[in-house]
Amino acid sequence: MKTAVLITIGDEILSGNTVDTNSNFIATQLKEIGVKVTSIFTIPDDESTIVSTLTKAFEMADVVFTTGGLGPTKDDITKKAYAEFFEDELIFSDKVYEHLRAYLEKRNRLWILEHNKEQAIVLSEAEVFLNYFGTAPCMVLERNGTFCFSLPGVPYEVKPLVKDQIIPFLKAKLSLDHIVTRIVSVVDVPESILSENIESWELALPEHIALSYLPIGTRVKLRLTASGDSQEKLNQELETEIQKLIPIIGDNIIATHEDKIEKILGELLNDRKLTISVSESCTGGELSRLITSITGSSKYFIGGIVSYATEKKVDILKVNPKTIEEFTVVSEQVASEMAKGCQELFKTDIAISTTGVAGPGKGEDGKDVGTVYYTIRIGNDETTSKLFLPHLERIDFMNFVSQKVVQDIVSLLIKK
Amino acid sequence: MKTAVLITIGDEILSGNTVDTNSNFIATQLKEIGVKVTSIFTIPDDESTIVSTLTKAFEMADVVFTTGGLGPTKDDITKKAYAEFFEDELIFSDKVYEHLRAYLEKRNRLWILEHNKEQAIVLSEAEVFLNYFGTAPCMVLERNGTFCFSLPGVPYEVKPLVKDQIIPFLKAKLSLDHIVTRIVSVVDVPESILSENIESWELALPEHIALSYLPIGTRVKLRLTASGDSQEKLNQELETEIQKLIPIIGDNIIATHEDKIEKILGELLNDRKLTISVSESCTGGELSRLITSITGSSKYFIGGIVSYATEKKVDILKVNPKTIEEFTVVSEQVASEMAKGCQELFKTDIAISTTGVAGPGKGEDGKDVGTVYYTIRIGNDETTSKLFLPHLERIDFMNFVSQKVVQDIVSLLIKK
Repeated sequence: MKTAVLITIGDEILSGNTVDTNSNFIATQLKEIGVKVTSIFTIPDDESTIVSTLTKAFEMADVVFTTGGLGPTKDDITKKAYAEFFEDELIFSDKVYEHLRAYLEKRNRLWILEHNKEQAIVLSEAEVFLNYFGTAPCMVLERNGTFCFSLPGVPYEVKPLVKDQIIPFLKAKLSLDHIVTRIVSVVDVPESILSENIESWELALPEHIALSYLPIGTRVKLRLTASGDSQEKLNQELETEIQKLIPIIGDNIIATHEDKIEKILGELLNDRKLTISVSESCTGGELSRLITSITGSSKYFIGGIVSYATEKKVDILKVNPKTIEEFTVVSEQVASEMAKGCQELFKTDIAISTTGVAGPGKGEDGKDVGTVYYTIRIGNDETTSKLFLPHLERIDFMNFVSQKVVQDIVSLLIKK
Repeated sequence: MKTAVLITIGDEILSGNTVDTNSNFIATQLKEIGVKVTSIFTIPDDESTIVSTLTKAFEMADVVFTTGGLGPTKDDITKKAYAEFFEDELIFSDKVYEHLRAYLEKRNRLWILEHNKEQAIVLSEAEVFLNYFGTAPCMVLERNGTFCFSLPGVPYEVKPLVKDQIIPFLKAKLSLDHIVTRIVSVVDVPESILSENIESWELALPEHIALSYLPIGTRVKLRLTASGDSQEKLNQELETEIQKLIPIIGDNIIATHEDKIEKILGELLNDRKLTISVSESCTGGELSRLITSITGSSKYFIGGIVSYATEKKVDILKVNPKTIEEFTVVSEQVASEMAKGCQELFKTDIAISTTGVAGPGKGEDGKDVGTVYYTIRIGNDETTSKLFLPHLERIDFMNFVSQKVVQDIVSLLIKK
């Protein structure tokens, strides 16, 4: 199997100012064409470190990517390091300059052309992939059969360069194995128990099928990856293995094709022609965001309310003030009335509510940080649950609760 | 300055299934005590690779972290690699086992104790930091003055181990330089122009103060990092440099203390005792999520509506159906009416709206993917703007628009 090494260049990643999402995107794209990322090196904007890391990467892999270090400001020295490593000179490319000019003109930003003209400087032996969403082009280089791509650091520039230009290029240049992946999502079984239950199945897997456990919240994703000549045969083999797995794990399997819980929900709602709405308090909009992050969600997602202030739960969701007085705003009774009010407001088949204390300060009624009640109404059936997650920071809490709520809706729908 | 190397172990990161957020968190924490991360290596669950990467890291740094590879399932071999590298044996720790037992008992999960007992196996010479939010403990090792920490991979287990145990430990063990960082946020000046404008200021910076450019959306964050003996002196020096910078950049500076735009907004709203509400369409809840991600946001954020379905814009936000008919739902007129309706519903000083097409499919009225109108109402003053972002994928689009809207509210408030 062909391998790749990714090199992320940038003090802003090492200092913790920016999370590196490019590596994740590139790895996912490469996996689809059967190229396996074996290492990711994140290094500073330092010329000699870039050169030594390029040297190491060329010893290890068939494909090398660098991201970052191509902007117009002083801390960017990637191109100089490339020139040193490839023993080549930097030249001014009229083609890149012309593209840059047209790019800026179209955006009424021709006035910054002169400030950006260094972007037109590339290695003399480099092939260039033009950047249609930014100013730094991608250089393509080859040495001893290893291909190397220099990418900018901005994620929305990286994505189209990789998807539209680099992946087709690699497909044409390399003779690639096929890789097929399937993910089986299992809920409510701890990883350690699951691993014991499926041990004999796992040991019997053919050599070219690999299994990984990916725990996320209260779910475990089992990832099966197969590599070989024939995509069709690999698909069949994975299907066969999954069919053997289903009777072992049973009802705890919620999906065998899709990976993301919000996508699994979307497919279920589409299949069953159901609509959904959301009323959130402690999740602050994250639950709506999660559901609407899926393309086509406007078919089933009608709307949401973030009723942060208590009086808005009364005004808009028609929660009874007496219920709040008696049980406090973070209570199963309020969660239940919020879901009911939400269902009436949006007129949906399913309505959800969350009410809790994301922290770090206590809520107005003194409930412990990390407490959350949530209600799922499907038609007239209602399920209210409680979570206590004092160990999670605010944003992690909002994410965890939203993931768990969506997971529970899926579980409930599957059992119906 | 003391340095650190982070080693992320896990096929799930390399395959693109999981984004590594641990490295970012650890880097941020280390920066605060003056330890600089010089490299991050992401490597597979492979014993010999782990050993060779540990060897390299020990040559490079004063502190080494590994994350991942400590779970109870088969693909985890980090501990074996540790034993090889440290030429030590793995022993069963009664202390860790007892903690594990108590941990599981408290969570009514004692039934999985036997399946997890391997978590009590540690290196004989390791000091152990107990994990209060998961089953795998952290091993602490030292060789030739370099400290090494083996952490689990789950972010909410990593965070408290680092924050509550490792950072205090390192502070006590290492004699550390102080590091002070300030971020100056600049809007509406392209990075290349900004860099030219401040060039002479930048060249005059003292040696121990470093400058980085961190572009994010239409904002550039200038990060100044100073290191030295006296924290107080460093603070003064940075303040002096920033005071020199302000007259050069002028009104385009929106903050000199805070980094996150949602935090800057929160402080402004708190200072001026203003409340805010949100009505979103194409941002799907992300705008509410962004604002509520800040601790204490319940003081100023009253609530939000995700009016995804067109009729909900009419029902709840009182948008005139004739406006939709005449101008389509993605129009400045609808954005304006949404903001007005939102302000009336939530009775807030500021109300915002977004309406657009996140894609990838066209909206129902045929507007181009990537088009968005947004209105910011402050009291009775209203500003409506348009963005066209066809290059962004759905989730990136939702993020970009939300960031830009919050940035614009800040700009408008500062000018008031």
